[in-house]
Amino acid sequence: MESGESIFEAAQREFKEETNLTPTSPHLKGVYTMIIKDGEKTVDEWMLYTFIAYGIEGEQFQETREGILEWHPIEALRQLPMAEGDRNNLLFAALDEGIQYGTFTYTMDYELIDERFQSSKET
Amino acid sequence: MESGESIFEAAQREFKEETNLTPTSPHLKGVYTMIIKDGEKTVDEWMLYTFIAYGIEGEQFQETREGILEWHPIEALRQLPMAEGDRNNLLFAALDEGIQYGTFTYTMDYELIDERFQSSKET
Repeated sequence: MESGESIFEAAQREFKEETNLTPTSPHLKGVYTMIIKDGEKTVDEWMLYTFIAYGIEGEQFQETREGILEWHPIEALRQLPMAEGDRNNLLFAALDEGIQYGTFTYTMDYELIDERFQSSKET
Repeated sequence: MESGESIFEAAQREFKEETNLTPTSPHLKGVYTMIIKDGEKTVDEWMLYTFIAYGIEGEQFQETREGILEWHPIEALRQLPMAEGDRNNLLFAALDEGIQYGTFTYTMDYELIDERFQSSKET
């Protein structure tokens, strides 16, 4: 996030920067506390937010410095290579109702040590 | 928030600490970027989260170091003394559907200089 941005503005800006597409109606689906531990000691801690968008506008980049952009069906989230924590977050965002909260603890080599979750819905 | 807590756990813990009540089914309603400016310079910045709860359990404190605890009807949020930014947040949480995002900019004396909002709903 840039100084003074809301998470909604940051999500739109980052998505645009990386894809050249503007997400229409982005909606927050997850808020996660990320912890990096060196043994017992917490060496880094940050918040991760996941959004879904119900549509997109614009002309998509073919390739960026992050790699070649590709579309995948939602079910492919179960097999595509990624951090296990991200897999869980993205499946919740794509398939479940409401908001998920949680904490992921990783080693300094990004090995997942621990994860726990809560979720809630508007009633 | 304490280290390693999710925002959901932090909200439950803080509410319990200040009221002795446990909120049942808390649900996130707002995520705000808070900025304190000294002239043009940003001197502090943090995230504020608002939750609603659909019920409570336990025996309520009469008084805490924060003051005497009182119940108010939702409409009283429009008149009760509080920071103007909080009034907006709490009215959204109590009355509107979906999630609100935004940025509040205050002076070092907590005078509201600027506020802007976005919101989204699950569709």
